[in-house]
Amino acid sequence: MNQYISHRNLRFLLYEVLGTDKLCQHDAYADYNHEAFDMALDAAKQISDTQLFPFYVEMDRKKAIFDNGKVTTHPQLKVLIQSIAEGGWIAAALPTEVGGLQMPHVLCNAALLTFYAANVNACYPFLTKGAANLISSFGSQALKDTYLPAMFDGSWQGTMALTEPQAGSSLTDILTSAEPTDTEGVYKIEGQKIFISGGDHDAVDNVVHLCLARIKGAPAGTKGISLFVVPKFRPENGDLVQNNVTCAGIYGKMGQKGYIAAHLMFGEQGDCLGYLVGEPHKGLPYMFQMMNEARIGTGLVAAGQASAAYYTSLKYAKERPQGRMPSSKNPLDPPVLIVEHADVRRMLLFQKATTEGGIALLMQCSFYADLAHVGNEEEAANAHLLLELLTPIAKSYPSELGIQSVSTAIQTLGGAGYCDDYPLELLYRDIRVNAIYEGTTGIHGLDILGRKVSMLNGKAFILFTNEVNAAITEGAKSDRTAVFAQQLGEKMTELTTLTQKILVNGREKGAEVMLADATLYLDYFGLVVIAWQWLKQGIAAEKALAQNVDIEDEKQFYESKIVAMRYFFEYELPKTNALNGQLLNFDKLTVSLDSTVLV
Amino acid sequence: MNQYISHRNLRFLLYEVLGTDKLCQHDAYADYNHEAFDMALDAAKQISDTQLFPFYVEMDRKKAIFDNGKVTTHPQLKVLIQSIAEGGWIAAALPTEVGGLQMPHVLCNAALLTFYAANVNACYPFLTKGAANLISSFGSQALKDTYLPAMFDGSWQGTMALTEPQAGSSLTDILTSAEPTDTEGVYKIEGQKIFISGGDHDAVDNVVHLCLARIKGAPAGTKGISLFVVPKFRPENGDLVQNNVTCAGIYGKMGQKGYIAAHLMFGEQGDCLGYLVGEPHKGLPYMFQMMNEARIGTGLVAAGQASAAYYTSLKYAKERPQGRMPSSKNPLDPPVLIVEHADVRRMLLFQKATTEGGIALLMQCSFYADLAHVGNEEEAANAHLLLELLTPIAKSYPSELGIQSVSTAIQTLGGAGYCDDYPLELLYRDIRVNAIYEGTTGIHGLDILGRKVSMLNGKAFILFTNEVNAAITEGAKSDRTAVFAQQLGEKMTELTTLTQKILVNGREKGAEVMLADATLYLDYFGLVVIAWQWLKQGIAAEKALAQNVDIEDEKQFYESKIVAMRYFFEYELPKTNALNGQLLNFDKLTVSLDSTVLV
Repeated sequence: MNQYISHRNLRFLLYEVLGTDKLCQHDAYADYNHEAFDMALDAAKQISDTQLFPFYVEMDRKKAIFDNGKVTTHPQLKVLIQSIAEGGWIAAALPTEVGGLQMPHVLCNAALLTFYAANVNACYPFLTKGAANLISSFGSQALKDTYLPAMFDGSWQGTMALTEPQAGSSLTDILTSAEPTDTEGVYKIEGQKIFISGGDHDAVDNVVHLCLARIKGAPAGTKGISLFVVPKFRPENGDLVQNNVTCAGIYGKMGQKGYIAAHLMFGEQGDCLGYLVGEPHKGLPYMFQMMNEARIGTGLVAAGQASAAYYTSLKYAKERPQGRMPSSKNPLDPPVLIVEHADVRRMLLFQKATTEGGIALLMQCSFYADLAHVGNEEEAANAHLLLELLTPIAKSYPSELGIQSVSTAIQTLGGAGYCDDYPLELLYRDIRVNAIYEGTTGIHGLDILGRKVSMLNGKAFILFTNEVNAAITEGAKSDRTAVFAQQLGEKMTELTTLTQKILVNGREKGAEVMLADATLYLDYFGLVVIAWQWLKQGIAAEKALAQNVDIEDEKQFYESKIVAMRYFFEYELPKTNALNGQLLNFDKLTVSLDSTVLV
Repeated sequence: MNQYISHRNLRFLLYEVLGTDKLCQHDAYADYNHEAFDMALDAAKQISDTQLFPFYVEMDRKKAIFDNGKVTTHPQLKVLIQSIAEGGWIAAALPTEVGGLQMPHVLCNAALLTFYAANVNACYPFLTKGAANLISSFGSQALKDTYLPAMFDGSWQGTMALTEPQAGSSLTDILTSAEPTDTEGVYKIEGQKIFISGGDHDAVDNVVHLCLARIKGAPAGTKGISLFVVPKFRPENGDLVQNNVTCAGIYGKMGQKGYIAAHLMFGEQGDCLGYLVGEPHKGLPYMFQMMNEARIGTGLVAAGQASAAYYTSLKYAKERPQGRMPSSKNPLDPPVLIVEHADVRRMLLFQKATTEGGIALLMQCSFYADLAHVGNEEEAANAHLLLELLTPIAKSYPSELGIQSVSTAIQTLGGAGYCDDYPLELLYRDIRVNAIYEGTTGIHGLDILGRKVSMLNGKAFILFTNEVNAAITEGAKSDRTAVFAQQLGEKMTELTTLTQKILVNGREKGAEVMLADATLYLDYFGLVVIAWQWLKQGIAAEKALAQNVDIEDEKQFYESKIVAMRYFFEYELPKTNALNGQLLNFDKLTVSLDSTVLV
């Protein structure tokens, strides 16, 4: 079987970089220790190896189809969902009170990464996890009792139903309506939702939509949006009754052809009931809990797929002979393996540095999610702020760089990479959508620059600076990391200055100018964040190497981290030099432009 | 019908930027003038609008299939090939002596760009054109008489058969053998070729392979490779006889599913005859004529597809309302068209600046090809050198940036862009391969840095510098171009210094170090070249605007050029700031690395 994820790398990040053993000292995670982590990871790998990875390509070829109002998926999907549900993974991160395993997020997300790297269709059960989490956090006891057990055991699918034809990036404009009935908390829902992942299919008995709608008479804008549970079949007196949610079709996506996105009609015949979650008009803040989780999830999918592509191209590069070194002039010399060519190595290191850098950040964010949950008051508040600040990057960096990384994997194979004998063309098609899911990259640029860096007078930014400085202090202590620690320090100073200049200029020139190049600011910030993650990894690898590792594989593993850190600082971080100039040009062409000259 | 190419832009480049009217003063092009150019362009557009563009998506959906040794294509393919052949386009650029129209390359390539933008399957007849050109240039009169007429009328397909399972980027390692027969110039061919575009299909009566093989006893390496015409059916006594060329299958490509790539077996039963083209052992230099033409062709395909994607996303951006301006806080304000958002404009300008910049370079190179053909001795020699120097960029820049550009078009549409209601997902799949065809981007990096910049003591580089300086001098004269002329001057100086440093360092440290980051050098060089093309376009647009253009569309067109020039200098050219640092680091990680630490 081809490698698609490195659990050696995950264990390195968890135990050696983040120090998850300490996390288990908190009461909430008392059931977990190093051994339990190992066992959980092994279990995830086992499911992935047997039920996910072997079906990845096939679930694209025999894609989901829509016919006569019904969505038919690959028969393996049911097995896949059941395997993950039976492993306890859908409820894993939820509290024991609602039937969960109260597993640390960082461990749960390491497992998710494994599942996603093996087969993107693992998204189905974890969409359910997100929906269940919302019900668990904000739903009434009745909702919990009615919906959670069947969601946890994988027989019911959960979804997040936000997007409408006229409301994509702009949720303000949601029109789906909710009219109170005689029963408190029960509403008649009417409207349509598009691009609903997992929105209808035959591998489950029911679909539970966590649906945004506007209660009649609610205030305009985002402050008038409420959250409802709207099932496909509503439980009534022990039976499941049709709830007038119909599937109008599924989208013909370029990739993720097993993972359906549905166009749904709610209440066309007027008999669609929705059950209010929490208080009226607070739907968007509630949904953002799920959304933030889904954003990390999108990052995990992207990083997982880039990981699978990396190992495919690495294997090929170590097996394929072609060409000779530039200094060899004798055509009778045998060809070398392509891994010997500098340009191929550059392409492999690009993939490794961006993918493992993204994975490190995703684990870091998951770790913050745990601290926000179990830390003392200050620790928790700080961790929450850091998570808020870094989520746009944890979502966007793996999504954007993953596209480039899989493209680079294809390039490493040449013509073979473009053909379906290898899974790279599929990964390339699949991974493209992550930069669109859960807020496009542009939306995340607006989020980080327009909200996150300045919230609470920039407190999150200051906390982030402290985290980076701690790594710089540590990195300065060793010869092999000191030069990179210094570079990171300089970049952090540059980012701080840049941020201040943008904010000051924005106060003068207005929001349009301030936010015009927010996407490029996100790119810049992302490079600094991933450099920080590489410095942390380099420090941990150096520590291990200082112990005189005598197992060859282990030594290579740690050395590979040093090499990838160096690659990142030498080849990736300098990209900030281009971005800095672009961002400091405040005479924004894209603001002053008259659209008629766009021809 | 959606727009896929701008002929206003092509006419601007031909008449206003390059000044093709002067070209027609040469005897060889005496049949052409401004009016003839217009008519030819209109004719190409007419075929594209009726026979190419309407079938583009369908030829992907009903893709070519291989069954029982036969390749079946979409029925439209035959019509497409015939339409292009009947328009005289296959022979257009060839001399009248062999039945061509002696059309200037720059005009022919403007037409090709149109065809490719409309439907990538236009590659079939122009592959034939390239093969016919080789026979026309180097073949015997008998070969010309036998093959050219049927190739020109579109009933026979031409191919270039280079790649073998063990010889992809490394043509040195070709094994296909040619054994002399009793008839002079006729050889028995045996071997296999892979990834042969147009290699076998049912829309033609015969396939003519221009095939590289090694005559038994030939020297090792590239100096022992000869070129043969190897037809699928060989003409004998007025009949077409099976020539023992069989198709073992076609590749399952991610895109270009109508444009087949075949795995071919030559002489498995020992009855495959090949006809030597020109002299023995000179096959590779001959083939490079076709290859260089094919490289420009690949650039044209990429730029054409990026153009089609650009107009699709531009149209969408001007029709789709979503969101409000950052300074608008009232949810009751109506949403704006997304073309009003700065980030969307940035994405559109990225596409426009990179795509039209690439098209300008392709027309510039085609113009040099004409000058190399019709200029006086010095002019011709210089134009040939400039063409040699710039071909790696004319091939790679549109291919690499085209991938990003189509990806940006998808991002502009969001979720809709990822789905097959729009042609963007198809363009995205199609365009990916151009960075692999006709030498991967890495190969072109080696070509420009390892050969082209230093050939004839750097003469081509000096000629290029002169061309750039001429534009800078001209640009300095107008307020709106002067600032960019100055920037280009600085970058040209930086590129010159950088090149010298790399060459000097290479003499000290060897070819491995010198060429390690050749791909990044190609990127750098490409940015300067396209900046030069934008300055030239800006100068021409300024000249036109100075005449007080009073037609609104025309004014917008010229203003759009000024805006795109500005975008390129403000957002694209600064990318050299990152590359410069990477390239000046001569302690190359990718050379010193031990491959075992790539895990």
